Amino acid sequence: MHSDRVWTAALVVIGDEILSGRTQDRNVAQIATWLNDQGIRLAEVRVVPDDSAAIGDAVNALRVKHDYLFTTGGIGPTHDDITVDAIATAFGVPVIVHPEARKILEDYYRDRPGGLTEARLRMARTPEGAELLRNPYSGAPGIRIGNVYIMAGVPAITASMLEALTGKLEGGRPVVSVTVGARAAESDIADLLRETEEAHRGVAIGSYPFFKDGGHGANFVIRSVDGELANATAAVLTERLRAAGYDPVEGGI
Amino acid sequence: MHSDRVWTAALVVIGDEILSGRTQDRNVAQIATWLNDQGIRLAEVRVVPDDSAAIGDAVNALRVKHDYLFTTGGIGPTHDDITVDAIATAFGVPVIVHPEARKILEDYYRDRPGGLTEARLRMARTPEGAELLRNPYSGAPGIRIGNVYIMAGVPAITASMLEALTGKLEGGRPVVSVTVGARAAESDIADLLRETEEAHRGVAIGSYPFFKDGGHGANFVIRSVDGELANATAAVLTERLRAAGYDPVEGGI
Repeated sequence: MHSDRVWTAALVVIGDEILSGRTQDRNVAQIATWLNDQGIRLAEVRVVPDDSAAIGDAVNALRVKHDYLFTTGGIGPTHDDITVDAIATAFGVPVIVHPEARKILEDYYRDRPGGLTEARLRMARTPEGAELLRNPYSGAPGIRIGNVYIMAGVPAITASMLEALTGKLEGGRPVVSVTVGARAAESDIADLLRETEEAHRGVAIGSYPFFKDGGHGANFVIRSVDGELANATAAVLTERLRAAGYDPVEGGI
Repeated sequence: MHSDRVWTAALVVIGDEILSGRTQDRNVAQIATWLNDQGIRLAEVRVVPDDSAAIGDAVNALRVKHDYLFTTGGIGPTHDDITVDAIATAFGVPVIVHPEARKILEDYYRDRPGGLTEARLRMARTPEGAELLRNPYSGAPGIRIGNVYIMAGVPAITASMLEALTGKLEGGRPVVSVTVGARAAESDIADLLRETEEAHRGVAIGSYPFFKDGGHGANFVIRSVDGELANATAAVLTERLRAAGYDPVEGGI
């Protein structure tokens, strides 16, 4: 039985490569979708550079505002991987070599060329008092300290850590989304949308225009933690769009 | 002649659709790249929901910390487009119908079905004291108030507004990036990377691992506002990687 309160999370994406435009972030959408399945709402994201103070400020501002805080990026073996140190500083604790993480890396690198070098051992460093998050994909674990979940930046590795965490976080009811699309100018059905939202307490309707195949239109996303209400609202919206002369498409365009 | 000081910008991405995972953001990378060409560094991004207080808090926190603040999303004709109202509240000014924006929309919709409806006229609303940002793509303009640039969320429209702004913002020297790739485990060349960075003041070297074609490797991105220094550092790094037995690839893998 899920509780009715809304559980929220924030995400800090760490990395100069995102802020320079070199790398297209994929973790916001990936983590947002995963969190919703856990009954947790992603309420805020910050993208910060590889800078200890910027990381620490964001972590300390957000970890007290939300049930959970996730970070991605900066936990590899190179000199620009400073997330662990920055978060330890933010918590006011030292960095240690976590015995269990050392063991995981010893096992992982035992039969690999080079073995467990000093650089690789960097990936066993955690803030004191932390627990590990399993990473079946590539050995080096993620880290939990308090309500802060420190994850890798490479999306496939982030996915591996999320999979290992699935079903383990307390959450509420997932938000149900129902989409209806129409080849209508947003501005032509703005009143209809607003009225439909106002008539259904507990739903939010978002309107997302698109331009494709030489035409334009919009998708309307009805969100609610009450799935029946979301579906009922979508049915009303579909009927109203049809009555207004459009040919609405369930599931969106 | 560009000045030597570092000009910075922040970006507030506004929209439930990003935080729900429904929509993959494209504007962070697009605006980051464009800003760099203008000699301005994107220093921080926040993604906030369609919530007036969340938008206002982010805008007021960031506009005083940076030379420029950009926002994307929430300036269309529907009820969930609340960016203009939220930013007017954040500035403590009323919302007006901007006479010039009204004229642009009158012209744009004169020969289009339905004409300038009340919903479309919503797109002429601005905070009092604002100027318009031209949008050749779809008529409805962006908005500047103080150092805050309020842009559309649909990436093609954002691009159109950025194009109209190109060369018009004061900035410093663009950051030059030079990339060198190698099929090396990051952890095997961590010392070499750190030493190369330490030996070249004024450059930052980022290391970005990849996994593809059944193998792994990393790209090393050397960044500096001094293009000659960036190139010289890349040459040293390439030579050191070659001496260590790798086959470095200029431009990255």
